[in-house]
Amino acid sequence: MPVVPVTLPQHRYDVAIEPGALGKLGERMRAVAPASSALIVFDRALEATHLPRARASLEAAGYATVCTPFPGGEENKTLATVHELYDVLLAHRFERRSPLVALGGGVLGDTAGFAAATYLRGVPFVQCPTTLLAMVDSSVGGKVGVNVKQGKNLIGAFYQPVSVVADPLVLRSLPARELRCGLAECIKHAVIADAALFAWTRTHMHELLALDADALAQLIARNVAIKAAVVMQDEKENGVRAHLNLGHTFGHAIEAGVGYGRILHGEAVGLGMLAATTLAGELGIAARELRAEVEDVVGRAGLPRRAQLPDDARLLAAMKLDKKVAAGSIRFILPERIGAVVIRETVAPEAVNAAWASIRS
Amino acid sequence: MPVVPVTLPQHRYDVAIEPGALGKLGERMRAVAPASSALIVFDRALEATHLPRARASLEAAGYATVCTPFPGGEENKTLATVHELYDVLLAHRFERRSPLVALGGGVLGDTAGFAAATYLRGVPFVQCPTTLLAMVDSSVGGKVGVNVKQGKNLIGAFYQPVSVVADPLVLRSLPARELRCGLAECIKHAVIADAALFAWTRTHMHELLALDADALAQLIARNVAIKAAVVMQDEKENGVRAHLNLGHTFGHAIEAGVGYGRILHGEAVGLGMLAATTLAGELGIAARELRAEVEDVVGRAGLPRRAQLPDDARLLAAMKLDKKVAAGSIRFILPERIGAVVIRETVAPEAVNAAWASIRS
Repeated sequence: MPVVPVTLPQHRYDVAIEPGALGKLGERMRAVAPASSALIVFDRALEATHLPRARASLEAAGYATVCTPFPGGEENKTLATVHELYDVLLAHRFERRSPLVALGGGVLGDTAGFAAATYLRGVPFVQCPTTLLAMVDSSVGGKVGVNVKQGKNLIGAFYQPVSVVADPLVLRSLPARELRCGLAECIKHAVIADAALFAWTRTHMHELLALDADALAQLIARNVAIKAAVVMQDEKENGVRAHLNLGHTFGHAIEAGVGYGRILHGEAVGLGMLAATTLAGELGIAARELRAEVEDVVGRAGLPRRAQLPDDARLLAAMKLDKKVAAGSIRFILPERIGAVVIRETVAPEAVNAAWASIRS
Repeated sequence: MPVVPVTLPQHRYDVAIEPGALGKLGERMRAVAPASSALIVFDRALEATHLPRARASLEAAGYATVCTPFPGGEENKTLATVHELYDVLLAHRFERRSPLVALGGGVLGDTAGFAAATYLRGVPFVQCPTTLLAMVDSSVGGKVGVNVKQGKNLIGAFYQPVSVVADPLVLRSLPARELRCGLAECIKHAVIADAALFAWTRTHMHELLALDADALAQLIARNVAIKAAVVMQDEKENGVRAHLNLGHTFGHAIEAGVGYGRILHGEAVGLGMLAATTLAGELGIAARELRAEVEDVVGRAGLPRRAQLPDDARLLAAMKLDKKVAAGSIRFILPERIGAVVIRETVAPEAVNAAWASIRS
């Protein structure tokens, strides 16, 4: 099976990407997390479609399975949900070696991953992302956690999975809006690190939106490779990993301002990337033409290019609560050109407000 | 300042042991966790005694401090308390580089440490243990976590501190019963790894109980060195670190059976060590005379040698819920002689019941 390896100082794992990979899940798990039983946390929307395939594969590989549904939606990415997962793990007396399998999108993977990271001080964790966003972003790299009322992802851990299995065929049941959210992160990766991928993505957007399996597999593999390379350089986000936050400082404030659930994470990141590109132009970091180039691809992906936003003061307050704030200053990731970004911590408020204006409808 | 270094694959830190060390806390912290502010989580019983000293040292080193009290007692080592600490951290907008200082015993350190491990995916954590037990055991090695109704320490993480500061003078305000609990862990370390320390501890028990500062400093340094050596070999408890659980498989069941708070952890470990030594004799692993030798030192320390226990079936059920259970079998750490232990997973129930009988009053 084609794999992208992720090699960290204390841990290595593979991201397997192949049409049909979900049917070989149990086989892969035997190699990295042998045990007598496994917990599958699954997205309730997948109960009739992908869950039976994953479960059958695990049972065939000798795991007794317990399956517990997870309601979709960012509003369930909470400590309360994590506690419910603890209760399931405790009720079934899952042991240290018993793996926890997350079958769903990023919200599910982040929440279940935090439970895996903290139950018995950590049990083996397997990511089976079922959205494009989760495949190319959240399932790789070990960031797990939940939201609190004060902001997104403020409680969590760095906890690497033992395996990630991404099956492009699973994306056939994904709502179009969520596919587009995944494309937002793919465009982000290309802007950060890979001009050739940016051009390829623009050229192949039609096939990607039509769910062509080969195009999707190639897109996923190239994006996972970018994400993995960054994580391998900087697992705990002390340096270059911050580049992956392009669009996120704005994006998290957009989500907080518009309301979780009313705008999707990928949509907010797409908008945030546009705002960051405007800001880069305002500051003379990038040519002003870059904005149109990025907006073109964001538009081709069918992502929003404007949103109804709260006033600048509220957005600023939301940005300041972001984890990426260091010593009170907000850290912006800004594109210099397609394929290269820089970090800026001191930015004139007027320039930030101009960036907000560029995406406000 | 005399230090014991702890060198792990991805992290190193020092345990500083010196009378008066608490007054130099801020100075030490500047070197390992420079920031503009720090949160001190303190044991409410120390508000008038050690907190002002720690706080003044931090302020003198340039930290703005926020101090939040923690009620004593194992019953507060819960997820609810962790959530209260999150609320304090969020209310003051503590950032990724802002250290969290735990000033108190093991319960406080474990709980505050779990908050530090999971707030913003981990902030710098400083342990200032104020009990002998916490100095020689829980503050070194990175095990943090909380209890749930199903058992002790079932939720948590491996999260290393950036510094540990142990000041033997602080022990002068420690209740005698808690000092004895610390001695139980010291005796345990000696039984596991150091026959010379076992003899030294027996010989110097009178000075230790009289809080002689030099004797305590020597005891702490030798015990931290044993603990650190084990942690350096096996940070995540995949092998030799399990030896430190001598007395704990029995001990945790004793705590669950007798009731948290009614018996202290160190008392339960002392009793558990006696039960384990009896079991080792029953199984022919150790000479039967070893039991009297261990009981002699446990008795000199003023620790209980008997307790009112529930019936064998309830104790067995409690042992089976312990984290150390692997594939359904209970893992016993058993002394061969003073200074050496072995691990056994298959043990006749009759032998275990004989061990329980040996400590049942």
